[in-house]
Order: sequence, then C-alpha cells, then structure tokens
Amino acid sequence: MKPIIEIARQTGIDTDYIEPYGKYKAKLEPELIEQLRDQPNGKLVLVTAINPTPSGEGKTLTSIGLSQSLHALGVRAIAALREPSLGPCFGMKGGATGSGRAQIVPADDINLHFTGDIHAISSAHNLLAAMIDNHLYHGNELRIDPKRITWKRTVDMNDRSLRSIVTGLGSGNGEVRESGYLITSASEVMAILCLSEHMADLKERLARIIIGYSYDGAPVTASDLKAVEGMAILLRDAIKPNLVQTIEGTPVILHGGPFANIAHGCSSVIGTKTALKLADIVVTEAGFGAELGAEKFFNIKCRQSGLTPSAAVLVVTVKALKYNGQTGTMESSTDSAGVNEITTLQNGMANLRRHVRNLQSFGVPVMVAINHFTGDTEEELALIQEECSRLGVPAEISHVWAEGSAGGEAMAHRLLHLLETAPQAFTPLYEDECSLESKIEQIITSIYGGEGAAYAPAARRTLEQLEAQGFGHLPVCMAKTPYSFTDQPRLLGAPTGFTIQVTRVSLSAGAGFVVVETGNTMTMPGLPRVPAAERMHIDAGGTIDGLF
Amino acid sequence: MKPIIEIARQTGIDTDYIEPYGKYKAKLEPELIEQLRDQPNGKLVLVTAINPTPSGEGKTLTSIGLSQSLHALGVRAIAALREPSLGPCFGMKGGATGSGRAQIVPADDINLHFTGDIHAISSAHNLLAAMIDNHLYHGNELRIDPKRITWKRTVDMNDRSLRSIVTGLGSGNGEVRESGYLITSASEVMAILCLSEHMADLKERLARIIIGYSYDGAPVTASDLKAVEGMAILLRDAIKPNLVQTIEGTPVILHGGPFANIAHGCSSVIGTKTALKLADIVVTEAGFGAELGAEKFFNIKCRQSGLTPSAAVLVVTVKALKYNGQTGTMESSTDSAGVNEITTLQNGMANLRRHVRNLQSFGVPVMVAINHFTGDTEEELALIQEECSRLGVPAEISHVWAEGSAGGEAMAHRLLHLLETAPQAFTPLYEDECSLESKIEQIITSIYGGEGAAYAPAARRTLEQLEAQGFGHLPVCMAKTPYSFTDQPRLLGAPTGFTIQVTRVSLSAGAGFVVVETGNTMTMPGLPRVPAAERMHIDAGGTIDGLF
Repeated sequence: MKPIIEIARQTGIDTDYIEPYGKYKAKLEPELIEQLRDQPNGKLVLVTAINPTPSGEGKTLTSIGLSQSLHALGVRAIAALREPSLGPCFGMKGGATGSGRAQIVPADDINLHFTGDIHAISSAHNLLAAMIDNHLYHGNELRIDPKRITWKRTVDMNDRSLRSIVTGLGSGNGEVRESGYLITSASEVMAILCLSEHMADLKERLARIIIGYSYDGAPVTASDLKAVEGMAILLRDAIKPNLVQTIEGTPVILHGGPFANIAHGCSSVIGTKTALKLADIVVTEAGFGAELGAEKFFNIKCRQSGLTPSAAVLVVTVKALKYNGQTGTMESSTDSAGVNEITTLQNGMANLRRHVRNLQSFGVPVMVAINHFTGDTEEELALIQEECSRLGVPAEISHVWAEGSAGGEAMAHRLLHLLETAPQAFTPLYEDECSLESKIEQIITSIYGGEGAAYAPAARRTLEQLEAQGFGHLPVCMAKTPYSFTDQPRLLGAPTGFTIQVTRVSLSAGAGFVVVETGNTMTMPGLPRVPAAERMHIDAGGTIDGLF
Repeated sequence: MKPIIEIARQTGIDTDYIEPYGKYKAKLEPELIEQLRDQPNGKLVLVTAINPTPSGEGKTLTSIGLSQSLHALGVRAIAALREPSLGPCFGMKGGATGSGRAQIVPADDINLHFTGDIHAISSAHNLLAAMIDNHLYHGNELRIDPKRITWKRTVDMNDRSLRSIVTGLGSGNGEVRESGYLITSASEVMAILCLSEHMADLKERLARIIIGYSYDGAPVTASDLKAVEGMAILLRDAIKPNLVQTIEGTPVILHGGPFANIAHGCSSVIGTKTALKLADIVVTEAGFGAELGAEKFFNIKCRQSGLTPSAAVLVVTVKALKYNGQTGTMESSTDSAGVNEITTLQNGMANLRRHVRNLQSFGVPVMVAINHFTGDTEEELALIQEECSRLGVPAEISHVWAEGSAGGEAMAHRLLHLLETAPQAFTPLYEDECSLESKIEQIITSIYGGEGAAYAPAARRTLEQLEAQGFGHLPVCMAKTPYSFTDQPRLLGAPTGFTIQVTRVSLSAGAGFVVVETGNTMTMPGLPRVPAAERMHIDAGGTIDGLF
C-alpha cells in the first residue's frame, strides 16, 4: 500500500483538501470539489451483470480489476464504488472489497468501521426516531398518529429479532407502539446521502423525509420535528467521499452503500462527480442484475444528478448462464439432471440477450465481461463470445481475479475502443411527467419483458394518493428479487408472459423516489446458523483473520 | 490548534506509532505502549468533587485547566479524560470538552463521532445481542432461558422509548421476548474496554460476560456463544487511546467513557497508563462526586490495574456549597428563603468536610480547588479557604474558565508542592477477601457516613448466589444518586443516621465488579421537551453552531 497522501497526489488532488484517516484512508473535503468545479468531466462507465447466482458474479471484482487495468495502461482511471455494510460481514462470510488480485485496501478497515459513515447515518436516523417518540411523550403537539408512524430505527447489524418490535413499554417510557429496525443500508438517510449534491441539498432532502401521518392524515416531516439540523450535523463528515486504493495503487472513491431493493443501490453522487473531475474514466457499479441495478442507476441516480453514462460493462459468468439455463425457466423447463452442460449454458444465453438489449435501449454502448472461473472450459467461453458476436456487442474474458490488471488488459482495451467509437445517446426510460403507474408499466414491459403489473388494493390506493399529493413526477424504485426478471426467484432465464405483483408502494420523499415493492422486501437480514463472526480471529497484536 | 503530529512529537511520542484521524486527532498504536514499557511512571492526580448541583461543578473544566497550568509552568503534564457520549449532546445542551479558556479541541469532532470508539462499542455489544437471539432461533443448543437473558441492546442516543421493548414479533423473526436498550456508555463492553490492559485482556474479559442463564440456572457467557473474536475485532481500533490537545496545546489522552452509576465512571486504564509513561503528572477525573467517583476510582480502577494515585483535587463551588447547605439536609433543615446566604454556605461546608476526610482515609494527599464563578463574593471565597485551612488541606481559587492556564497557576503550584511534600500511602478501602456485603457496609459507613444497608430480598439472594459462585472477591460498583451521600437526592449536606436501600445486585463478570443498585438506576436517558438538537445549526460549508 502507498500512503494515501501519495495516492491523492498522483490523482491530482491538492493534499490540503484531504483529511487522512490513518495512513491509508482519507476523506475529501468540500473545498476540493469546489476547486475542481471547472475541470472537464471524465467518462462514466457502469459495471452491471446478468441475473446472478446466489453467490454473485463478480461485479465489484470486475469494477476493481477494470480500473486497475485502465490505470496500468496509463489511463487516468478511478473506481467509484459503494462502501461495505458491517452487518453482513459478520453474517455470511465475505466483505465488499473484491478478492484475489483485484482488491481494495486496507480491506480490514474498510470492511469494519471504515471512516464511520455508516455509523453516522445510523445516528442521524436514530436521532429522528428518538425525536419522534420524544414528541409524543411531551404532548404530541403535531398530533402525530402513533399507529401511522412509518419511520423505524436502524442498526448496521444482521438482527432478525429487531424486525418487528414494540417500544415504549413500562412506566414513564412514552407511547407504547409497534416499530422495528432496518439495517442501516436500507435507511432512507443512506439513500439521501448518496443522492445529495452537497450539504445544502442534504439538508433539503432530510427536511422532506416523511416520518408518518397526523390524525388528520397530513404527512409529518423531519422538518416539522426540527430534526434536520441535528441530523445534518451528525452527517457532516459522512457526506465527504472517501479515498482509498486498489492493491495496484489505483485510486478508489468509496462512498455510500444503499440497498439495491428499497433504495437505488449505487454509490454516492458526490463521490461519482468528484471522481469524474479527477479522472478520464470512472468505473462505477450498481447493485443486483442490470434489470434492477442498471435501470435504477439510469432512471434514478443519473436522472436526479444529471450524470451521463458513456458505456455499460455487463458481467457474465459461465456459472450464472448455466444457472439461468437450468431449471424452472419459462423458456426451458427441463431439469438439469442429465441435460448436457453446453445445452444448459446455451439456454441461459436468453438472459444475457435480454440484458444486452435492455442496456442498449437506454442508448448506452454495451460490452460484455466474462468473469473467468477456474473450472470454465474453452468451449464454454467461446460459446459466450460467439453469442456476443451475434448480438453485435464486444466481449472479453476477464482474468482480473487471478492476474490483476494484466488479466483485464484486453477488457480495458476493448472498453477504450468502445468509448471512442460507439455512438452515445443516453436517455432514461421514461419522462418525469409519466404517471407512477405508467413508469412501473414501462419498466415491466420494456425491461423485465413482462405483461404488466397487478396491484394489491392498498398499493393502488397509495399510488393514487401520491399522484394526488403531487409526487407523481418522481421516479420509481423497484424492489424485486434479483434472481429473475420476474418477481419469482425461481423463474430463471428470460421468462415472458408474466405479471408483476405490486404488494406495497411507499414514498421516500427525501431520497426523491417512490418505492414499489413486489413481494416481501427484506430490510433487516438475519444471521445464519453459524455466523461468519464465529470463524474470525484476532490475535494479541490486533491482526485479524477471517473477516472477509 | 497545532497539528496532532506536532503535539505527539512534543509529548515524546514516536510519530511512527500514531495513526492520525484528520489533522488534529490521532490514535496511539499498541507498539507505542510496548516501546514505552521501561519508562518510569509519572504521578497520577485525581480530580473529583463534592456533591454537585444538577448543573455540575466543573470537574472536567478544572482537570483541563489544571493540566494547562502545569504545562504552562513547564511540567510534562497530560490530561487523561473520558470521551463524551453522543446521545446527551443532542439532549441537554453541553458537550464534555470543557468551556471558556479551558477546553479540549477539536471540540465539535470530539463531541460528535470522534474516532468512532463509542460506535465500535455499540457494534460489539449489539453483535453479541444478535448472536444470542440467533442462537435461540437456530435451535437453542445451549438451552438459554429466554426469560433470563440479561444482555440488552445498546445505542448512543437518548431514547426513552427503547428502555423496555418486546423483540422477535412477527413470523420468522425469532423468539418473542422482553428486552431493552442501554445508552452505550452504560454497556458492560464500555466498562470492559476501560478496564482492559491490552487486547488479550480485553478478549478474556469479553469471554467472561454473562448474557443470562440456561434453563438449568447455569450462567451463559459470550464465550459460550462464540462471540468473543467478532466483538474483539470490532473493538480493534477502539481499544487504542486517542490523542488530542487543549486550546493551549497541552496533550490530552481522551479514551473511554463509562457511566458513573452501573459502571465505574473513569477513563481507560490503557489511556491512563500510557499517559503515565509520557508525563510527569497525569491529571485524570472520575464521574459524579467523590463518594461515588473517587471511591470507585480507588476501589475498582486502581485496584484492578495497580495504579497508585499521588493526590486528589477536590473541586468545590460556592454554588454547590450553598446548594448543600440549603434545604432538606439532616444537619440543617431550615429553608433557604430568608436564610442568610453566608449561613447557607457555612452549612454546606459539612459536605466538603466529609469528602476531604473520605479522600484522606484512602491515604491520598488532598487539595481543594475552588472553581470560581463570576457572582462569587470575596467573603464567600475567603470562608471556603478558611474552612480548608482549619481542615489542614491546601486550597486555591481556580480561574481557568476565564483565564486558562494563568488562572490555574496558583492551583498548579500548590499541587506541585503537595506532591513533593505530602506523605503518600494509598490503600483501597477494603480487601478483596471481604465478603460483598462487608464491602457494601464499609462503603456506606466509612464513606457515605450512614449506618448500613437494607437489602431487598432479591438483592440479598443475588449476593448469596454470587458468593457461592465464587464472585465474592470482586469489588462492588455502587449505583446511587450523585446528589447526596445517601440514596435520597434531596438529603443534602452531610446527613447521618441513614440506611442505604439496596434494591438490586448484578454481576458484570467481564468488567470484574458487582453492581449494587440503590433505587432506580437510569441506563437510558430521555430527551427533554426541547432537545438541544433543535437549537443547533450547520451551514452549507459544514460549520456547526450550538453543538456544545
């Protein structure tokens, strides 16, 4: 690892404008962003994926590796990525800093408390929660209906017992009411921080948060509760992007980590915009597969912030194509047992095809990165490349896990060529002016390949209310299983003829989107039977083993 | 403010062994402590106070000011103090970084997330909580009785609604059971961190934490739940002491902040021991008045860690003496209305006398610091000095709030003289071998001036069980109102003839003490009608107003 001061210097950052957190991490001060205002923007490249297997297809790995490869070719490149959440680290093994020879360092620090952003978000969220109950306790001047409070509490820990709780029991402890906890990455404060342009914008968004409704049915906001300044103070440092590096010394801006279901699943706008001022190419990533992650990246993050993506890299694996080609898809319902592996792989191509077509429909040039695993055969890899060739999209095999930048050189060259040659005409899928229902329908028909939506009565009612209240212009944030184009995780491949069941609609007024839930959205994970925490170790000198 | 690197250098710290958190804060690495092992120890000075008014008598202020004055006289001095808790900052106005010209900086940072220690403690505490409920969920192999789980959850926020809650409601969310939240400074993990000598000791203490009891009545520990490594990993950085400075550039080690009721209320042993290797005089502080704070500092912190205090500075104010002399005391029950202020002040001297005698009974040289307030009259101040003179203890007026080091010069000279001349023979009040009940009785009779204890039946039963289980050798940690020598906050002055009602006894096996509660112990504060958060402000450039 190089000192972060050196990474900053190499990246063209005036070191007066960084605040080091230890030797290898730093925060970038708002003055830096001010100073860079007139610099031209680099090109923004989104790394996304086909529908994944439960173990993931290596989007983060590919993003890190691709930035390393560009950097090694002498391109001014930065990776702008999400920071990991602490909770899952202690649940299922695995951090969010890449692996093999494509890694972000210092990985232990980053996977632990890092620079404290997520704790700060928890504090801000929980201050608002405490101020709500305190308001009820001291007479409830705003006439908040305790049964219609939607603001929960938050903690960065996998703790299923906190999903649904009753608070305020006992004498003198306030109003008894139902509540619950979200994991911090699912907090609207996280989404807000990631979509804010600066402190003033952050405060405006915090002020708009709706915490529930009064007895008269009027929305009650964080502003009504006078919580905005306190929350913003708690977020003073969290809003500053973090600078770290890859194991090859490529600069990485790691900032924000919202859930990809009830939030938009992208790293912060401030981080991305800062990176664009400092680099010619910025590699970023969106959570889940492209029908969720890329769709929300384009329709929420880019729309709100005015960012224009220059290319999309679609990560595929032989494993995921086989998974998608295997069982229970609507295109191929043959069981995997006895079926030729190649046939299975070819069946899975349907998933790849739909994702490529979807990305192209946004006017964004696409290339495919085949993330290589040790067991992949030449024949399998060739088949994917042939398929891409038929689709007219460039494809390269990525060996970044095994080889670092050298293993991504071909991919990087291909990307550079694409950026130079491909016509670019990014347009979001829908206009602000479309109704919320129309936005949902367009996503389902144009992106998922389905027929339309079926709404639970309460969901339809909420949509109507939101339109009436003037929130119809907002983008929609789809919360759906990442394993399928449909709302059924077992319907793999490229299903058709399906309808999406919209179970619940809610407003994130501060973040600026309407959350559309299809099925049960998990906002607080649980720990597995043997949590990863049980297999970790720290020695007397503080050296950690088994954290990621 | 000087760069923290410079403060470190001036303090004789090899800057290879500090980890800067921004320009003005740093963590001290374990290697530094290793390197300093053979250095001689400086002298340890405890700052404590008489029974306070609800607004406090300026112990922290005096500690900071005294260290500034010593530093200004050319003495190698360090203040080793507690770091503030975030929650109360947003409740009742007022941080914990001093005020006027005796302040620790950067005050905003310190009163906010600082270096993340308290968040890390919350995470470690809550990981254990999540692992307990997860154990129940996955079959409860250890046969933990859900009704006898004593380990709660924690958050650094004033939130009364979380005092008593029911968790695990809803389908698939685990066992439904009663639980609750403590504020983080009341967590046993905080007490453990503050009493640990190093990482290995920390792990041993974490392993001993008793989270509840099995159906067979056997204690279940954090070790049984395999939570120790994960917790210790989360505390890897929190265990390292923090270095900051006063506004006059005096080095300050700010580390740990346990409650002074159910915990011992002192800054960390690691921080204190590190400071003693780096300075000739270390000024430290204990929470509440001397009958609680100093007693626990001597009988718990010094006992466990082998520290020997060289002097005690007893902070008094005219205001507190009048408060103690005013109403409802058992020595003087006349009402304040119409009573001469001087008479009231003189009545209050009884409180001062008992605290001086108590401190002397530990074999520690005592001096009195009269913390000067603007309205104090010459006559009042002279009376206090005369009283001290009669008691044979040196006394000086401290003007550190108004004048910084210059205002504490006389106090610093007096302290230096005391350290040079007074005989030192520190002994804790009781032997390890005494029974728990005997320890409680000795504290009540020798320190509080009472007749003895009356035990609630459950408290007596717990004492007997703890003796039977082999915990009788532990020191006791008294949880009592800080406003009186008794357990009644309105009995001011120096009451006699009273009995202390012991309502509840519990074991903090990891911290290594038995908590003895007298009345209701508050472990989760609430917010006032108008929380301080409502009066704060942060501008677009990130400048904060009204945080402390």
